[in-house]
Amino acid sequence: MRCETLSTQSRKNPYSGIVTFLTDFGAEDGYAGVMKGVVLAHAPGARLVDITHCVPRFNLCAAALILENSFPSFQAGSLHVMVVDPGVGSVRRHLFCKAAAHFFIGPDNGVLGRIAELNRGSVFEIDPALLGVTKASNTFHGRDIYALAAGKLLAGLDRSAFSAPITDPEVLQIPEPCEVEGRVEGEIIHIDHFGNLITNLRTQHLGEGSCVCLGEERLAIVSSYSELEEGKPGLILNSWGYYEIACREGSAACLLEMRVGEKVSVKP
Amino acid sequence: MRCETLSTQSRKNPYSGIVTFLTDFGAEDGYAGVMKGVVLAHAPGARLVDITHCVPRFNLCAAALILENSFPSFQAGSLHVMVVDPGVGSVRRHLFCKAAAHFFIGPDNGVLGRIAELNRGSVFEIDPALLGVTKASNTFHGRDIYALAAGKLLAGLDRSAFSAPITDPEVLQIPEPCEVEGRVEGEIIHIDHFGNLITNLRTQHLGEGSCVCLGEERLAIVSSYSELEEGKPGLILNSWGYYEIACREGSAACLLEMRVGEKVSVKP
Amino acid sequence: MRCETLSTQSRKNPYSGIVTFLTDFGAEDGYAGVMKGVVLAHAPGARLVDITHCVPRFNLCAAALILENSFPSFQAGSLHVMVVDPGVGSVRRHLFCKAAAHFFIGPDNGVLGRIAELNRGSVFEIDPALLGVTKASNTFHGRDIYALAAGKLLAGLDRSAFSAPITDPEVLQIPEPCEVEGRVEGEIIHIDHFGNLITNLRTQHLGEGSCVCLGEERLAIVSSYSELEEGKPGLILNSWGYYEIACREGSAACLLEMRVGEKVSVKP
Repeated sequence: MRCETLSTQSRKNPYSGIVTFLTDFGAEDGYAGVMKGVVLAHAPGARLVDITHCVPRFNLCAAALILENSFPSFQAGSLHVMVVDPGVGSVRRHLFCKAAAHFFIGPDNGVLGRIAELNRGSVFEIDPALLGVTKASNTFHGRDIYALAAGKLLAGLDRSAFSAPITDPEVLQIPEPCEVEGRVEGEIIHIDHFGNLITNLRTQHLGEGSCVCLGEERLAIVSSYSELEEGKPGLILNSWGYYEIACREGSAACLLEMRVGEKVSVKP
Repeated sequence: MRCETLSTQSRKNPYSGIVTFLTDFGAEDGYAGVMKGVVLAHAPGARLVDITHCVPRFNLCAAALILENSFPSFQAGSLHVMVVDPGVGSVRRHLFCKAAAHFFIGPDNGVLGRIAELNRGSVFEIDPALLGVTKASNTFHGRDIYALAAGKLLAGLDRSAFSAPITDPEVLQIPEPCEVEGRVEGEIIHIDHFGNLITNLRTQHLGEGSCVCLGEERLAIVSSYSELEEGKPGLILNSWGYYEIACREGSAACLLEMRVGEKVSVKP
Repeated sequence: MRCETLSTQSRKNPYSGIVTFLTDFGAEDGYAGVMKGVVLAHAPGARLVDITHCVPRFNLCAAALILENSFPSFQAGSLHVMVVDPGVGSVRRHLFCKAAAHFFIGPDNGVLGRIAELNRGSVFEIDPALLGVTKASNTFHGRDIYALAAGKLLAGLDRSAFSAPITDPEVLQIPEPCEVEGRVEGEIIHIDHFGNLITNLRTQHLGEGSCVCLGEERLAIVSSYSELEEGKPGLILNSWGYYEIACREGSAACLLEMRVGEKVSVKP
């Protein structure tokens, strides 16, 4: 009996109480703080965590990469509010998404659809009117719709009260390595705070004895930054599961003047 | 009876438990974290939210604009600690302010006085000795006075124990649009993270058929960023209730090389 | 009896529930948020505070200075996670440290050893296997070891379950003023967000009538920034207990073009 009750409860409120935020709002204007105010006004016990507010403006690939490599560190039932939203105020839809035992809220621009696809999740379209939005701005749906939805969900409102399943969300593609003339060709997909050049190459792309070259230079594959010679870049498997080009206590991005999108090829 | 008890309680502790912070301390030195440590030492259950720590150094207008457009998103009874404080260590007073069902703490430099004036609030001068401050630094009243006051208020200390009403706080003026030769003339009052040029023009300043021009160029008035042609600036009503000059997925500030204080006139 | 029970409890869980973070991870990539996710997954009631994530990359002196001047503002029993970690993935040890009634977790690179030495604390080496780490990345021990340790400690795991005392941690030296030809010579040890040049000179280094000169220019010693003439630098005792060279509403670092490590001498 008791078990059943608990199970009913957890079916009713499957949320951990953690709400994370990932935006390109920056830190200057109070936009992120305002979203937290809205969540707390509806869910006073919510525990709020910033993933980042420094996604490069309008950069959906960076948003997707950071979100999909960050959310699994949170406990199941966490609710992730993603507001990189170049289409704010236009007709693009508002989404709620369940995937990998986590929950996501944000605009329909490919980031949430991608997470749903990668994790066989479900996607729902939010109807702002059903959510109780009477007057939304056309420039800040993070405050007027997404934070409100997060707060109300944590306060006990069921997602079915304001959203319905859809099957055609936008799905963002992030380049995968491909085979070109018998060689695996990857590319730089992200540059982090340390100037590490994160490629889309994973362990399965580097066979034994194979190596990655920049021009004529073969990159040493090392297992820690400390193994690198100073000023000489190398390859290391990073915490997201990708190989990154790194320098010891320096920025590979500055040293090599490489950017997101540049190709990196694997030699067998 | 029960109602009366509750009402007495809420008269005793009118705080929501939320404390927000708005400073120009930046993120580098731990100054903001230290203020939170002080609040939590006195009020372990406080819920802390950063509005921003990236107000341009000593910029009271930016502080005021961000604060007055952010605090209403928090629930009533929230306590907002504002420490943009070029006069720290001088004779300027320390204020506690009640306005619009919110509470504010900070130096007497116009920001809190303005919020009190706009919202018909009350202002009180804090006496640090009565607050229990025995030895304050002359460079960090955010830690030594304002965070301490916030923590003690949330812990149950009544504001009357350490502050007394005043009627002459500094009141910051932010330029309002004015009429020049029969035309409404506004100006840029803030530039946000996206490079949007926020003017002081509101809906009442733009009559039907009127428009805003930059030189000879008439700005399109749009209802979402997506309606803008790329590279062509337009005017949009933003989430603070002001018209802003914006670009689609770009920075109007960079494109137009405009700054805070530059004039923008409305043509009838 | 009751007293004994309480005392046993507090011996069992001496933590305040506050976890602070001090890293050089920056705000862009979600690394800091991920550490919080790990802590909360193990200790749902933890209260998390950022000291800073903007320590200059790999800069242990800055990390040490900020940490030792920030942690005392938190209540006793707080747990401070310090991850400026150029040696991540190498053989350097993982430390848990008790000092000044606070707790610290981080790599063995001198920062925690210094805090232990200054405060006569105790240092313990963490064994990741005993902590339950099965598969750590080689690039992000903040997530895989330090946040996990923090979460498990707050959840009730005793530090003795995964760490053993050591007596030889690395101890970082930050330059102290010294006597050169009968004069006290200090130096700039940190530059803060406002461009204040923080020296290692304390009250004991400036006798009555003595002064600090830059070249021929004698710096006025003032008790608040407001006493300074605009554009003219002066000396002020700051909130960390050091004398700093400051400008009124301006950056002394920009005005004087001085850097960390430059000498400042006291004239008697």
